[in-house]
Amino acid sequence: MSSEDWLDAVKWNSDGLVAAIAQDHQTGKILMQAWMNREALSLTAREQQAVYWSRSRSRLWRKGESSGHQQKLIELRLDCDGDSVLLVVEQLGGIACHTGRESCFYRKLDQQGEWQVTDAVIKDPDTIYSSHS
Amino acid sequence: MSSEDWLDAVKWNSDGLVAAIAQDHQTGKILMQAWMNREALSLTAREQQAVYWSRSRSRLWRKGESSGHQQKLIELRLDCDGDSVLLVVEQLGGIACHTGRESCFYRKLDQQGEWQVTDAVIKDPDTIYSSHS
Repeated sequence: MSSEDWLDAVKWNSDGLVAAIAQDHQTGKILMQAWMNREALSLTAREQQAVYWSRSRSRLWRKGESSGHQQKLIELRLDCDGDSVLLVVEQLGGIACHTGRESCFYRKLDQQGEWQVTDAVIKDPDTIYSSHS
Repeated sequence: MSSEDWLDAVKWNSDGLVAAIAQDHQTGKILMQAWMNREALSLTAREQQAVYWSRSRSRLWRKGESSGHQQKLIELRLDCDGDSVLLVVEQLGGIACHTGRESCFYRKLDQQGEWQVTDAVIKDPDTIYSSHS
């Protein structure tokens, strides 16, 4: 894949970013939502693994670079107005969230109007990130 | 549900918006990604149907208001950093996209680096929106 014309179909926002949603290819579960700049999206396709743009750290962020929980790219999709991409991925370790859960969307609004934590921690975050302390 | 304290857990961006992802409750398919302001999210919970904020039209947008393709809310989820919500929905008519497709993510990047349309049009958009012409 030499040409990167496909990147021109993306409608980058005023910060040069596009919303990116990661979905597990087996369970269909939504794992996380993050952001990509042009370089991150290009690298994601070239390396066949999720590379995001960290807005808080203002740098490229290869998902799993500290946790080992990389996301192998299975499918890359673009929505109708081009401002959102969907990554269907194989989530290594089965954990996408920095809290040690499968998904970042682990809170659900209950009937009483309160966010309830519904998903269990699979692995203690201290253990996940301890090799880098 | 009288208190709306749960809305304070959301981290609104500088435009007062939060990213919202809609997923079909049966198929697990990602249907679309749009935006909500505080009022839209509050109404979504109260009316138990997706209400978005249209950035292009600068107004509330009850999904399905012209197409009839409403999204009945099954679950509302919030991610770990509070800047993205997930709506698990029942998609009326089985069509979320204004192009007449089930999902807005109907283009997939192929091996040659080109976006390929992979999803069929279920209903001609002219038919969907004709009652309002």
